[in-house]
Amino acid sequence: MELGILSLGDHLPDPRDGRRVSQADRLRAIVESGVRAEELGFGMAAIGEHHFNDYIVSAPPVVLAAIAERTSRIRLSSAVTLLPMLDPVRVAEDFATLDLLSGGRMEMVIGRGISPDHYAAFGQDPGEAHATLDEKLALLTALWSGDQPVTWSGRFRGPLDAVTVQPRPTRTPPRMWMGSGMSEESVRRVAEKGMPLMLPSIFRRPEDYAGLVTLYREIMASSGKADQALVGCCSHLHVKPTSQGATSDWRPHLVSYADWANRIRGVEMKIDFDRLVDGPAICGSPAEVSERLLAIGELLRPDVHLSVFDIGGLPDAEVARTMELFAAEVMPKLRS
Amino acid sequence: MELGILSLGDHLPDPRDGRRVSQADRLRAIVESGVRAEELGFGMAAIGEHHFNDYIVSAPPVVLAAIAERTSRIRLSSAVTLLPMLDPVRVAEDFATLDLLSGGRMEMVIGRGISPDHYAAFGQDPGEAHATLDEKLALLTALWSGDQPVTWSGRFRGPLDAVTVQPRPTRTPPRMWMGSGMSEESVRRVAEKGMPLMLPSIFRRPEDYAGLVTLYREIMASSGKADQALVGCCSHLHVKPTSQGATSDWRPHLVSYADWANRIRGVEMKIDFDRLVDGPAICGSPAEVSERLLAIGELLRPDVHLSVFDIGGLPDAEVARTMELFAAEVMPKLRS
Repeated sequence: MELGILSLGDHLPDPRDGRRVSQADRLRAIVESGVRAEELGFGMAAIGEHHFNDYIVSAPPVVLAAIAERTSRIRLSSAVTLLPMLDPVRVAEDFATLDLLSGGRMEMVIGRGISPDHYAAFGQDPGEAHATLDEKLALLTALWSGDQPVTWSGRFRGPLDAVTVQPRPTRTPPRMWMGSGMSEESVRRVAEKGMPLMLPSIFRRPEDYAGLVTLYREIMASSGKADQALVGCCSHLHVKPTSQGATSDWRPHLVSYADWANRIRGVEMKIDFDRLVDGPAICGSPAEVSERLLAIGELLRPDVHLSVFDIGGLPDAEVARTMELFAAEVMPKLRS
Repeated sequence: MELGILSLGDHLPDPRDGRRVSQADRLRAIVESGVRAEELGFGMAAIGEHHFNDYIVSAPPVVLAAIAERTSRIRLSSAVTLLPMLDPVRVAEDFATLDLLSGGRMEMVIGRGISPDHYAAFGQDPGEAHATLDEKLALLTALWSGDQPVTWSGRFRGPLDAVTVQPRPTRTPPRMWMGSGMSEESVRRVAEKGMPLMLPSIFRRPEDYAGLVTLYREIMASSGKADQALVGCCSHLHVKPTSQGATSDWRPHLVSYADWANRIRGVEMKIDFDRLVDGPAICGSPAEVSERLLAIGELLRPDVHLSVFDIGGLPDAEVARTMELFAAEVMPKLRS
């Protein structure tokens, strides 16, 4: 189970004093977290994409290029790239450029996102999200294949007449995960495409994914792709020297974030911190956090686990401290 | 006259041995040139955008973010951003992200580009290039204005219903140049928009622009915008300790580049090195190069001059040497 970080880029005030850092400082902190992640031994840094709201990362390849320039080993991914809303040609260009600048460390998680209301702003119909995703994924795959130039036409983008997008990525094609896992149907779609599966970064319990992951692996195996059946999962996570310290530190930030994130997703729900950290999120001492991650490891056998550390206005110094403690006292327990 | 560099990102073989570095090495060299430019005292690093050919930079904001991460002072610009082919929403997002990551150093040159045949690949009609540019520029300006959210509809992109693009740039709006200068009509358009004027980076003599620059400044002055009348210009440039050394070094690279660039632009013309360096391009000893730049300074009184050093497969070590000599022996002459 490789360990990584995921930043979704929410830009919320610190709920303890209501103050909010500038957007520039928030983006800076995300880059610094990526650099720190490599220093601390994480294997992957992933960045979420959102539009038109207080998740302020709308251009993951630009942020990832900054991280790439100060790192040399860590893999760099979006999570997720909202492919149905974007032009696959521009996505291919942006991510291939990132790939070459980073020495081949680019990966990508593709998904439909949480905001169907944003489809219209990009000229797309949310009712066609699956069809749009399928068509654009097929085009992106073709643009990155060894078979060039590409002549193509489809429903959700204008036609292409013998074009080869430049630059070319290091691998043909690069590793593209599918962000999915809300239903049997969606997992089935991923497996039928033979793609790696990245589970959502929302507040569901790992147990909720167990059956879906089993289904995914079964379909992959039955179609002779067992060796390509990669699974990634995510947890909102906070670790401090003591259980009590972790809880009192994190409570206002997690509650503030979860409340806001639910509203963004159109979910009406009273946030219950104790219920959140009892399953969907992970909070505690290094021993407690390790135990929870080992349990996830047993339950889902993920190839990658991404921790979301920087949420709800948690100051960057606190993010750094929890990452450092995670590296010093959780990572060794998971490795042994 | 501030001095900067411009890299157009051509990825051609070294004509002396036919060898071509990898795309990754070429992009790496462009980033290193940007970093070097700051170290040597240049004030601006600009990167060209092209698609589907051997100009391999298709994503300037991604490349500029890498340069931004290792610099602190130099201004970072596209030259040009092919706005008619792109989605202004995505352009606003990409460049604002760059702006915040770089501490407000982002600028942008907007233009129609040299390849009308690429418009179709982005679903646009090259016959409508002016109208498309005007509409998209107006939208980009609105997206970056202080007046949010934006509700908009137009001919060349789907409508927007009360959106605010995130993140927000440092300045409202950022500095946007217009890349133009091929005709009185085009210069008139720039002046009527009240925008800074960036002259083209093609092989024309500075004298060819003198009348256009005068016209631009006159229109700007007559509409009360004399203080906003900024002019930028570009030269392909090579400097060596001796005139003879500069000529023999650069000849194969400039000829190879100019020949290829003409073909890309659909221009049939035999390349004459001596004619090129007699006007459109600058090649020589530090004294000769300084004299040429001083003459351009007198003729056009530009606010910014961008040197294109890295063309036609010139090895990066040679690019570094010519930049260093330029900084050591040309810059002081221009400043005194």
